[in-house]
Amino acid sequence: MSISFHPIGTVRTSATELPRHWSLSDVEGTLEIDPKFLSGLKDIQIGQQIVVLFHFHKSESFTESLLTQTPPHRDTAMGVFSICSPRRPNPIGLSVVTVTGISGNRIEVRGIDMFDRTPILDIKPHHNFEKSESME
Amino acid sequence: MSISFHPIGTVRTSATELPRHWSLSDVEGTLEIDPKFLSGLKDIQIGQQIVVLFHFHKSESFTESLLTQTPPHRDTAMGVFSICSPRRPNPIGLSVVTVTGISGNRIEVRGIDMFDRTPILDIKPHHNFEKSESME
Repeated sequence: MSISFHPIGTVRTSATELPRHWSLSDVEGTLEIDPKFLSGLKDIQIGQQIVVLFHFHKSESFTESLLTQTPPHRDTAMGVFSICSPRRPNPIGLSVVTVTGISGNRIEVRGIDMFDRTPILDIKPHHNFEKSESME
Repeated sequence: MSISFHPIGTVRTSATELPRHWSLSDVEGTLEIDPKFLSGLKDIQIGQQIVVLFHFHKSESFTESLLTQTPPHRDTAMGVFSICSPRRPNPIGLSVVTVTGISGNRIEVRGIDMFDRTPILDIKPHHNFEKSESME
């Protein structure tokens, strides 16, 4: 079974050196969302953290040898579902970034760990990651 | 541009009444992962929280009228990217569940808000959602 998605926009950043994870990133960039989705952005606010799901579009194809991988800061191999490697069966990335500005369909953010031109699949509110906190 | 993914497994649960969000859920179920990915599961541990990305496979097609939606517990319409509605441009769901048991390729979890037979796209470690916390 194949499930197809279409990007809702693109990450833009002039940074060429990227941290290996958003939690270590102060890199700034822009989420350029397709204008046809503009009204869907209306409640995103400056200062807010948002979850960005994206396509690891530069990742090589997944093979069985990638089921365990040794992260750069580790010395033992770990199961792919316990690490954040971009080389995964379905190359979907997840980053939490902070909104620093909004102008129409362009969302300025800090915390980028994606390459320039990364296809964006979805944006979700972040406050929902805390169990028993209020959520939409 | 179309991006295609293939499910890595399936959510199984006998529950027919599901909460509207995982943060409100004590429902138990099983993540049945394709045995070919077994070694990728090796570091998932009982008691751990994991992030499950899945396909909202029962959602109707997205249309412009769904760019803003009124959540069940609200009285005003909100932008789709600020709410957790399953009716989104790319119907990808995200839930955080707690591992209660592991047996081969079957992960028993608590916190299910997905329907039985929901296709699973990815599993990621959860501890990475906290900024500046250690992560893999």
